[in-house]
Amino acid sequence: MSFRATVLTLYPEMFPGPLAVSLAGRAKASGTWSLEAVQIRDFATDKHRSVDDTPAGGGAGMVMRADVLARAIDHAAPEGDPRPKLLMSPRGIPLTQARVRQLATGPGAVILCGRFEGVDQRLIEARALEEVSIGDYVLSGGEPAALVLLDAVVRLLPGVMGNESSGTEESFESGLLEHPHYTRPQNFEGGEIPEVLLSGNHRRIAEWRLAEAEKITRERRPDLWAAYQEAAKSK
Amino acid sequence: MSFRATVLTLYPEMFPGPLAVSLAGRAKASGTWSLEAVQIRDFATDKHRSVDDTPAGGGAGMVMRADVLARAIDHAAPEGDPRPKLLMSPRGIPLTQARVRQLATGPGAVILCGRFEGVDQRLIEARALEEVSIGDYVLSGGEPAALVLLDAVVRLLPGVMGNESSGTEESFESGLLEHPHYTRPQNFEGGEIPEVLLSGNHRRIAEWRLAEAEKITRERRPDLWAAYQEAAKSK
Repeated sequence: MSFRATVLTLYPEMFPGPLAVSLAGRAKASGTWSLEAVQIRDFATDKHRSVDDTPAGGGAGMVMRADVLARAIDHAAPEGDPRPKLLMSPRGIPLTQARVRQLATGPGAVILCGRFEGVDQRLIEARALEEVSIGDYVLSGGEPAALVLLDAVVRLLPGVMGNESSGTEESFESGLLEHPHYTRPQNFEGGEIPEVLLSGNHRRIAEWRLAEAEKITRERRPDLWAAYQEAAKSK
Repeated sequence: MSFRATVLTLYPEMFPGPLAVSLAGRAKASGTWSLEAVQIRDFATDKHRSVDDTPAGGGAGMVMRADVLARAIDHAAPEGDPRPKLLMSPRGIPLTQARVRQLATGPGAVILCGRFEGVDQRLIEARALEEVSIGDYVLSGGEPAALVLLDAVVRLLPGVMGNESSGTEESFESGLLEHPHYTRPQNFEGGEIPEVLLSGNHRRIAEWRLAEAEKITRERRPDLWAAYQEAAKSK
Protein backbone atom coordinates (compact mmCIF):
# COMPACT_ATOMS: atom_id res chain seq x y z
CA MET A 1 0.00 0.00 0.00
CA SER A 2 1.40 3.35 -0.91
CA PHE A 3 1.79 6.39 1.33
CA ARG A 4 -0.87 8.96 0.54
CA ALA A 5 -0.26 12.64 1.24
CA THR A 6 -2.94 15.30 0.90
CA VAL A 7 -1.88 18.90 1.38
CA LEU A 8 -4.45 21.64 2.03
CA THR A 9 -3.06 24.98 0.93
CA LEU A 10 -3.77 28.37 -0.63
CA TYR A 11 -0.83 27.70 -3.00
CA PRO A 12 -1.28 24.24 -4.55
CA GLU A 13 1.17 25.31 -7.29
CA MET A 14 3.99 24.98 -4.71
CA PHE A 15 3.51 21.19 -4.84
CA PRO A 16 5.14 18.81 -5.59
CA GLY A 17 7.92 21.37 -6.26
CA PRO A 18 11.22 19.90 -5.07
CA LEU A 19 9.46 16.60 -4.33
CA ALA A 20 9.11 15.99 -8.09
CA VAL A 21 12.90 15.62 -8.36
CA SER A 22 15.50 13.03 -7.29
CA LEU A 23 14.64 10.33 -4.73
CA ALA A 24 11.17 11.63 -3.87
CA GLY A 25 10.32 12.26 -7.52
CA ARG A 26 11.32 8.77 -8.63
CA ALA A 27 9.42 7.22 -5.72
CA LYS A 28 6.35 9.24 -6.66
CA ALA A 29 6.61 8.21 -10.30
CA SER A 30 6.83 4.55 -9.28
CA GLY A 31 3.76 4.77 -7.04
CA THR A 32 5.52 4.42 -3.68
CA TRP A 33 3.69 7.52 -2.58
CA SER A 34 1.14 9.99 -3.94
CA LEU A 35 0.56 13.66 -3.38
CA GLU A 36 -2.62 15.66 -3.84
CA ALA A 37 -2.66 19.42 -3.28
CA VAL A 38 -6.10 20.78 -2.44
CA GLN A 39 -6.97 24.47 -2.86
CA ILE A 40 -8.57 25.62 0.40
CA ARG A 41 -10.22 28.52 -1.39
CA ASP A 42 -12.45 26.07 -3.26
CA PHE A 43 -14.28 25.52 0.03
CA ALA A 44 -15.17 29.15 0.65
CA THR A 45 -18.84 29.98 0.14
CA ASP A 46 -18.98 33.72 -0.44
CA LYS A 47 -18.46 35.39 -3.78
CA HIS A 48 -14.99 36.67 -2.79
CA ARG A 49 -13.93 33.12 -1.86
CA SER A 50 -12.75 34.40 1.55
CA VAL A 51 -10.81 31.98 3.73
CA ASP A 52 -9.83 34.34 6.53
CA ASP A 53 -11.16 37.12 8.70
CA THR A 54 -9.90 39.55 11.34
CA PRO A 55 -8.91 38.14 14.75
CA ALA A 56 -11.53 38.20 17.50
CA GLY A 57 -10.23 40.57 20.17
CA GLY A 58 -8.20 42.59 17.66
CA GLY A 59 -4.55 42.48 16.65
CA ALA A 60 -2.39 42.12 13.57
CA GLY A 61 -2.99 39.86 10.59
CA MET A 62 -5.81 37.56 9.64
CA VAL A 63 -7.05 34.24 11.01
CA MET A 64 -8.13 31.30 8.86
CA ARG A 65 -11.81 30.48 9.31
CA ALA A 66 -12.81 27.24 11.06
CA ASP A 67 -15.83 26.63 8.84
CA VAL A 68 -13.97 26.89 5.51
CA LEU A 69 -11.06 24.75 6.74
CA ALA A 70 -13.42 22.15 8.18
CA ARG A 71 -15.08 21.71 4.80
CA ALA A 72 -11.68 21.32 3.12
CA ILE A 73 -10.50 18.78 5.70
CA ASP A 74 -13.73 16.79 5.64
CA HIS A 75 -13.53 16.62 1.86
CA ALA A 76 -9.89 15.48 1.89
CA ALA A 77 -10.31 13.05 4.76
CA PRO A 78 -13.90 11.79 5.11
CA GLU A 79 -14.86 10.02 8.32
CA GLY A 80 -12.91 6.79 8.66
CA ASP A 81 -9.82 8.05 6.85
CA PRO A 82 -7.06 6.56 9.01
CA ARG A 83 -4.43 9.18 8.20
CA PRO A 84 -3.18 11.58 10.88
CA LYS A 85 -4.17 15.20 10.32
CA LEU A 86 -1.28 17.61 10.79
CA LEU A 87 -1.16 21.39 10.98
CA MET A 88 2.22 22.93 10.19
CA SER A 89 2.63 25.67 12.82
CA PRO A 90 5.42 27.30 14.83
CA ARG A 91 3.28 26.59 17.91
CA GLY A 92 3.52 22.86 17.27
CA ILE A 93 5.50 20.09 18.87
CA PRO A 94 8.99 20.11 17.30
CA LEU A 95 9.35 17.52 14.55
CA THR A 96 11.76 14.71 15.42
CA GLN A 97 13.22 11.86 13.43
CA ALA A 98 11.21 9.49 15.65
CA ARG A 99 7.92 11.11 14.55
CA VAL A 100 9.10 11.07 10.92
CA ARG A 101 9.78 7.33 11.21
CA GLN A 102 6.30 6.75 12.69
CA LEU A 103 4.62 8.69 9.91
CA ALA A 104 6.57 6.71 7.30
CA THR A 105 5.15 3.44 8.61
CA GLY A 106 1.58 4.75 8.45
CA PRO A 107 -0.97 5.15 5.62
CA GLY A 108 -0.09 8.77 4.83
CA ALA A 109 -0.91 12.22 6.14
CA VAL A 110 -3.34 15.06 5.66
CA ILE A 111 -1.34 18.27 6.03
CA LEU A 112 -2.92 21.66 6.55
CA CYS A 113 -0.69 24.60 5.67
CA GLY A 114 -1.84 27.55 7.72
CA ARG A 115 -0.96 31.11 7.16
CA PHE A 116 1.17 31.51 10.19
CA GLU A 117 -0.80 34.34 11.75
CA GLY A 118 -3.11 31.57 12.77
CA VAL A 119 -5.92 29.12 12.34
CA ASP A 120 -9.12 29.30 14.39
CA GLN A 121 -8.49 27.29 17.56
CA ARG A 122 -11.92 25.62 17.40
CA LEU A 123 -10.95 23.95 14.10
CA ILE A 124 -7.74 22.58 15.62
CA GLU A 125 -9.73 21.05 18.46
CA ALA A 126 -12.77 19.88 16.49
CA ARG A 127 -10.66 18.04 13.91
CA ALA A 128 -7.99 16.91 16.42
CA LEU A 129 -5.17 18.42 14.37
CA GLU A 130 -1.64 17.55 15.46
CA GLU A 131 0.33 20.80 15.42
CA VAL A 132 3.85 20.21 14.13
CA SER A 133 6.73 22.72 14.08
CA ILE A 134 9.84 22.19 11.97
CA GLY A 135 11.84 24.78 13.93
CA ASP A 136 11.91 28.04 15.86
CA TYR A 137 11.69 30.48 12.97
CA VAL A 138 8.81 32.12 11.11
CA LEU A 139 7.90 31.12 7.55
CA SER A 140 5.59 32.82 5.06
CA GLY A 141 3.22 29.87 5.47
CA GLY A 142 3.06 26.18 6.23
CA GLU A 143 3.98 25.14 2.68
CA PRO A 144 7.80 25.04 2.96
CA ALA A 145 7.37 23.17 6.25
CA ALA A 146 5.11 20.60 4.58
CA LEU A 147 7.70 20.08 1.83
CA VAL A 148 10.37 19.43 4.48
CA LEU A 149 8.17 17.02 6.42
CA LEU A 150 7.25 15.05 3.30
CA ASP A 151 10.88 14.93 2.12
CA ALA A 152 11.93 13.49 5.48
CA VAL A 153 9.13 10.90 5.43
CA VAL A 154 9.37 9.84 1.80
CA ARG A 155 13.07 8.95 1.96
CA LEU A 156 12.18 6.36 4.63
CA LEU A 157 9.46 4.63 2.59
CA PRO A 158 10.30 1.05 1.54
CA GLY A 159 12.55 0.94 -1.51
CA VAL A 160 13.20 4.68 -1.77
CA MET A 161 16.80 4.66 -0.60
CA GLY A 162 17.49 1.13 -1.82
CA ASN A 163 20.06 -0.50 0.38
CA GLU A 164 21.78 2.72 1.39
CA SER A 165 22.02 2.98 5.13
CA SER A 166 22.48 6.42 6.56
CA GLY A 167 25.23 7.30 8.99
CA THR A 168 23.41 10.52 9.78
CA GLU A 169 20.44 8.53 10.89
CA GLU A 170 22.48 6.17 13.04
CA SER A 171 24.02 9.27 14.53
CA PHE A 172 20.60 10.72 15.44
CA GLU A 173 19.61 7.42 17.04
CA SER A 174 22.72 7.55 19.22
CA GLY A 175 21.79 11.06 20.35
CA LEU A 176 24.99 12.60 18.93
CA LEU A 177 25.76 14.80 15.97
CA GLU A 178 27.74 13.07 13.26
CA HIS A 179 31.55 12.88 13.24
CA PRO A 180 33.48 14.71 10.47
CA HIS A 181 33.80 13.07 7.05
CA TYR A 182 36.78 12.89 4.71
CA THR A 183 37.35 11.49 1.25
CA ARG A 184 39.83 11.74 -1.61
CA PRO A 185 41.91 13.66 -2.54
CA GLN A 186 44.31 12.83 0.27
CA ASN A 187 45.76 16.33 0.18
CA PHE A 188 43.40 19.30 -0.17
CA GLU A 189 45.05 22.73 -0.13
CA GLY A 190 47.70 21.34 2.22
CA GLY A 191 45.19 19.66 4.56
CA GLU A 192 45.56 15.89 4.98
CA ILE A 193 42.98 13.24 5.86
CA PRO A 194 43.54 12.36 9.56
CA GLU A 195 46.06 9.52 9.75
CA VAL A 196 43.83 7.29 11.89
CA LEU A 197 41.24 7.05 9.06
CA LEU A 198 43.91 5.62 6.75
CA SER A 199 45.23 3.16 9.36
CA GLY A 200 42.89 0.30 8.48
CA ASN A 201 42.45 -0.24 12.24
CA HIS A 202 38.67 -0.42 12.54
CA ARG A 203 38.63 -0.23 16.27
CA ARG A 204 40.77 2.93 16.40
CA ILE A 205 38.63 4.46 13.63
CA ALA A 206 35.41 3.77 15.57
CA GLU A 207 36.91 5.22 18.75
CA TRP A 208 38.11 8.35 16.93
CA ARG A 209 34.71 8.87 15.31
CA LEU A 210 32.88 8.51 18.62
CA ALA A 211 35.24 10.97 20.32
CA GLU A 212 34.75 13.49 17.50
CA ALA A 213 30.97 13.05 17.57
CA GLU A 214 30.96 13.65 21.33
CA LYS A 215 33.17 16.73 20.94
CA ILE A 216 31.03 18.39 18.28
CA THR A 217 27.81 17.59 20.15
CA ARG A 218 29.21 19.10 23.37
CA GLU A 219 30.30 22.24 21.52
CA ARG A 220 27.23 22.84 19.37
CA ARG A 221 24.29 21.24 21.13
CA PRO A 222 24.44 21.41 24.91
CA ASP A 223 20.79 20.24 24.87
CA LEU A 224 21.57 16.99 23.05
CA TRP A 225 24.75 16.54 25.07
CA ALA A 226 22.89 16.73 28.38
CA ALA A 227 20.33 14.18 27.17
CA TYR A 228 23.11 11.89 25.91
CA GLN A 229 24.88 11.94 29.27
CA GLU A 230 21.60 11.33 31.05
CA ALA A 231 20.94 8.29 28.84
CA ALA A 232 24.49 6.99 29.36
CA LYS A 233 24.05 7.17 33.15
CA SER A 234 20.88 5.13 33.15
CA LYS A 235 22.50 2.28 31.23
CA MET B 1 20.62 46.96 -2.80
CA SER B 2 18.93 43.66 -3.24
CA PHE B 3 19.52 40.43 -1.33
CA ARG B 4 21.49 37.99 -3.46
CA ALA B 5 21.17 34.24 -2.86
CA THR B 6 23.37 31.69 -4.60
CA VAL B 7 22.56 28.04 -4.01
CA LEU B 8 25.09 25.30 -4.80
CA THR B 9 23.29 22.04 -5.45
CA LEU B 10 23.16 18.82 -7.44
CA TYR B 11 19.49 19.63 -8.17
CA PRO B 12 19.26 23.20 -9.47
CA GLU B 13 15.85 22.33 -10.91
CA MET B 14 14.48 22.36 -7.33
CA PHE B 15 14.90 26.16 -7.32
CA PRO B 16 13.17 28.57 -7.07
CA GLY B 17 10.35 26.01 -6.60
CA PRO B 18 7.95 27.32 -3.95
CA LEU B 19 9.92 30.58 -3.80
CA ALA B 20 8.57 31.52 -7.24
CA VAL B 21 5.06 31.83 -5.78
CA SER B 22 3.25 34.24 -3.43
CA LEU B 23 5.24 36.75 -1.30
CA ALA B 24 8.69 35.46 -2.21
CA GLY B 25 7.84 35.17 -5.89
CA ARG B 26 6.48 38.71 -6.13
CA ALA B 27 9.53 40.06 -4.27
CA LYS B 28 11.81 38.17 -6.63
CA ALA B 29 9.98 39.51 -9.68
CA SER B 30 10.30 43.06 -8.37
CA GLY B 31 14.05 42.71 -7.77
CA THR B 32 13.97 42.74 -3.96
CA TRP B 33 16.05 39.58 -4.05
CA SER B 34 17.66 37.32 -6.62
CA LEU B 35 18.37 33.61 -6.71
CA GLU B 36 20.97 31.73 -8.72
CA ALA B 37 21.17 27.93 -8.54
CA VAL B 38 24.60 26.58 -9.46
CA GLN B 39 25.10 22.96 -10.53
CA ILE B 40 27.97 21.57 -8.44
CA ARG B 41 28.59 18.85 -11.02
CA ASP B 42 29.81 21.51 -13.48
CA PHE B 43 32.93 21.80 -11.31
CA ALA B 44 33.94 18.15 -11.47
CA THR B 45 36.96 17.44 -13.65
CA ASP B 46 36.75 13.76 -14.54
CA LYS B 47 34.75 12.39 -17.41
CA HIS B 48 32.08 10.94 -15.10
CA ARG B 49 31.62 14.38 -13.49
CA SER B 50 32.07 12.79 -10.04
CA VAL B 51 31.35 14.97 -7.04
CA ASP B 52 31.68 12.36 -4.30
CA ASP B 53 33.78 9.42 -3.21
CA THR B 54 33.80 6.75 -0.49
CA PRO B 55 34.47 7.87 3.10
CA ALA B 56 38.06 7.63 4.37
CA GLY B 57 38.06 5.02 7.13
CA GLY B 58 35.07 3.17 5.64
CA GLY B 59 31.36 3.31 6.38
CA ALA B 60 28.05 3.86 4.63
CA GLY B 61 27.29 6.38 1.91
CA MET B 62 29.40 8.81 -0.02
CA VAL B 63 31.19 12.02 0.95
CA MET B 64 31.25 15.16 -1.20
CA ARG B 65 34.75 16.03 -2.37
CA ALA B 66 36.50 19.11 -1.00
CA ASP B 67 38.22 19.99 -4.27
CA VAL B 68 35.06 19.96 -6.41
CA LEU B 69 33.06 21.93 -3.86
CA ALA B 70 35.88 24.45 -3.39
CA ARG B 71 35.85 25.21 -7.11
CA ALA B 72 32.07 25.67 -7.05
CA ILE B 73 32.20 27.96 -4.01
CA ASP B 74 35.11 30.02 -5.34
CA HIS B 75 33.25 30.49 -8.60
CA ALA B 76 30.02 31.54 -6.86
CA ALA B 77 31.73 33.73 -4.26
CA PRO B 78 35.11 35.02 -5.46
CA GLU B 79 37.45 36.55 -2.87
CA GLY B 80 35.94 39.70 -1.42
CA ASP B 81 32.32 38.53 -1.76
CA PRO B 82 30.86 39.78 1.53
CA ARG B 83 28.08 37.19 1.76
CA PRO B 84 28.12 34.55 4.50
CA LYS B 85 28.68 30.99 3.23
CA LEU B 86 26.26 28.50 4.74
CA LEU B 87 26.18 24.71 4.66
CA MET B 88 22.76 23.17 5.34
CA SER B 89 23.51 20.21 7.62
CA PRO B 90 21.90 18.35 10.53
CA ARG B 91 25.20 18.84 12.38
CA GLY B 92 24.81 22.60 12.22
CA ILE B 93 23.79 25.19 14.77
CA PRO B 94 19.96 25.24 14.93
CA LEU B 95 18.46 28.05 12.87
CA THR B 96 16.75 30.72 14.96
CA GLN B 97 14.60 33.71 14.09
CA ALA B 98 17.45 35.93 15.36
CA ARG B 99 19.85 34.47 12.78
CA VAL B 100 17.17 34.79 10.08
CA ARG B 101 16.78 38.48 10.95
CA GLN B 102 20.57 39.02 10.77
CA LEU B 103 20.77 37.36 7.37
CA ALA B 104 17.91 39.50 6.09
CA THR B 105 19.82 42.70 6.90
CA GLY B 106 22.93 41.45 5.04
CA PRO B 107 23.93 41.35 1.36
CA GLY B 108 22.71 37.81 0.73
CA ALA B 109 23.97 34.26 1.25
CA VAL B 110 25.87 31.52 -0.52
CA ILE B 111 24.18 28.26 0.43
CA LEU B 112 25.76 24.86 -0.09
CA CYS B 113 23.30 21.97 -0.14
CA GLY B 114 25.18 18.88 0.93
CA ARG B 115 24.06 15.34 0.53
CA PHE B 116 23.50 14.62 4.15
CA GLU B 117 25.91 11.71 4.41
CA GLY B 118 28.50 14.45 4.52
CA VAL B 119 30.88 16.97 3.07
CA ASP B 120 34.66 16.71 3.44
CA GLN B 121 35.56 18.43 6.71
CA ARG B 122 38.57 20.19 5.17
CA LEU B 123 36.26 22.10 2.82
CA ILE B 124 34.10 23.27 5.73
CA GLU B 125 37.19 24.60 7.50
CA ALA B 126 39.05 26.00 4.48
CA ARG B 127 36.03 28.01 3.29
CA ALA B 128 34.81 28.85 6.82
CA LEU B 129 31.34 27.47 6.12
CA GLU B 130 28.68 28.17 8.74
CA GLU B 131 26.84 24.90 9.33
CA VAL B 132 23.12 25.52 9.80
CA SER B 133 20.47 22.97 10.83
CA ILE B 134 16.76 23.62 10.40
CA GLY B 135 15.81 20.82 12.81
CA ASP B 136 16.55 17.40 14.28
CA TYR B 137 15.40 15.24 11.39
CA VAL B 138 17.09 13.82 8.33
CA LEU B 139 16.35 15.14 4.83
CA SER B 140 17.26 13.70 1.43
CA GLY B 141 19.62 16.64 0.98
CA GLY B 142 20.18 20.27 1.89
CA GLU B 143 17.78 21.59 -0.75
CA PRO B 144 14.49 21.58 1.21
CA ALA B 145 16.39 23.18 4.12
CA ALA B 146 17.73 25.92 1.83
CA LEU B 147 14.18 26.63 0.60
CA VAL B 148 13.00 26.99 4.20
CA LEU B 149 15.88 29.28 5.16
CA LEU B 150 15.33 31.52 2.13
CA ASP B 151 11.57 31.66 2.71
CA ALA B 152 12.16 32.80 6.30
CA VAL B 153 14.71 35.43 5.22
CA VAL B 154 12.87 36.81 2.18
CA ARG B 155 9.66 37.59 4.05
CA LEU B 156 11.70 39.97 6.26
CA LEU B 157 13.26 41.91 3.38
CA PRO B 158 12.11 45.54 3.12
CA GLY B 159 8.74 45.87 1.40
CA VAL B 160 7.97 42.16 1.15
CA MET B 161 5.28 42.01 3.81
CA GLY B 162 4.22 45.63 3.35
CA ASN B 163 2.90 47.00 6.58
CA GLU B 164 1.77 43.67 7.96
CA SER B 165 3.26 43.06 11.36
CA SER B 166 3.39 39.50 12.56
CA GLY B 167 2.00 38.38 15.88
CA THR B 168 3.89 35.12 15.50
CA GLU B 169 7.10 37.07 15.32
CA GLU B 170 6.28 39.19 18.36
CA SER B 171 5.50 35.95 20.11
CA PHE B 172 8.93 34.48 19.26
CA GLU B 173 10.59 37.67 20.51
CA SER B 174 8.81 37.30 23.83
CA GLY B 175 10.06 33.72 24.14
CA LEU B 176 6.56 32.26 24.17
CA LEU B 177 4.48 30.30 21.71
CA GLU B 178 1.53 32.21 20.35
CA HIS B 179 -1.88 32.33 22.04
CA PRO B 180 -4.86 30.72 20.28
CA HIS B 181 -6.67 32.62 17.53
CA TYR B 182 -10.36 32.94 16.79
CA THR B 183 -12.38 34.63 14.07
CA ARG B 184 -15.89 34.57 12.63
CA PRO B 185 -18.20 32.69 12.57
CA GLN B 186 -19.08 33.23 16.22
CA ASN B 187 -20.50 29.74 16.50
CA PHE B 188 -18.62 26.85 14.87
CA GLU B 189 -20.14 23.40 15.37
CA GLY B 190 -21.40 24.55 18.76
CA GLY B 191 -18.08 26.08 19.85
CA GLU B 192 -18.13 29.78 20.70
CA ILE B 193 -15.40 32.40 20.55
CA PRO B 194 -14.23 32.96 24.16
CA GLU B 195 -16.31 35.73 25.70
CA VAL B 196 -13.31 37.80 26.78
CA LEU B 197 -12.27 38.33 23.16
CA LEU B 198 -15.65 39.89 22.40
CA SER B 199 -15.60 42.11 25.51
CA GLY B 200 -13.82 45.06 23.93
CA ASN B 201 -11.75 45.30 27.12
CA HIS B 202 -8.23 45.52 25.71
CA ARG B 203 -6.53 45.02 29.01
CA ARG B 204 -8.47 41.82 29.81
CA ILE B 205 -7.84 40.56 26.28
CA ALA B 206 -4.08 41.13 26.61
CA GLU B 207 -4.03 39.39 29.98
CA TRP B 208 -5.98 36.41 28.64
CA ARG B 209 -3.69 36.09 25.63
CA LEU B 210 -0.56 36.21 27.78
CA ALA B 211 -1.94 33.58 30.15
CA GLU B 212 -2.84 31.31 27.20
CA ALA B 213 0.59 31.81 25.61
CA GLU B 214 2.26 30.89 28.90
CA LYS B 215 0.06 27.83 29.28
CA ILE B 216 0.74 26.44 25.82
CA THR B 217 4.47 27.13 26.10
CA ARG B 218 4.63 25.34 29.46
CA GLU B 219 2.78 22.34 28.05
CA ARG B 220 4.52 21.98 24.70
CA ARG B 221 7.97 23.47 25.07
CA PRO B 222 9.54 22.98 28.50
CA ASP B 223 12.81 24.22 26.95
CA LEU B 224 11.35 27.61 25.95
CA TRP B 225 9.42 27.82 29.20
CA ALA B 226 12.58 27.38 31.30
CA ALA B 227 14.38 30.08 29.28
CA TYR B 228 11.37 32.40 29.62
CA GLN B 229 11.29 32.04 33.39
CA GLU B 230 15.06 32.55 33.55
CA ALA B 231 14.71 35.79 31.54
CA ALA B 232 11.82 36.97 33.71
CA LYS B 233 13.88 36.46 36.87
CA SER B 234 16.81 38.55 35.60
CA LYS B 235 14.55 41.54 34.87
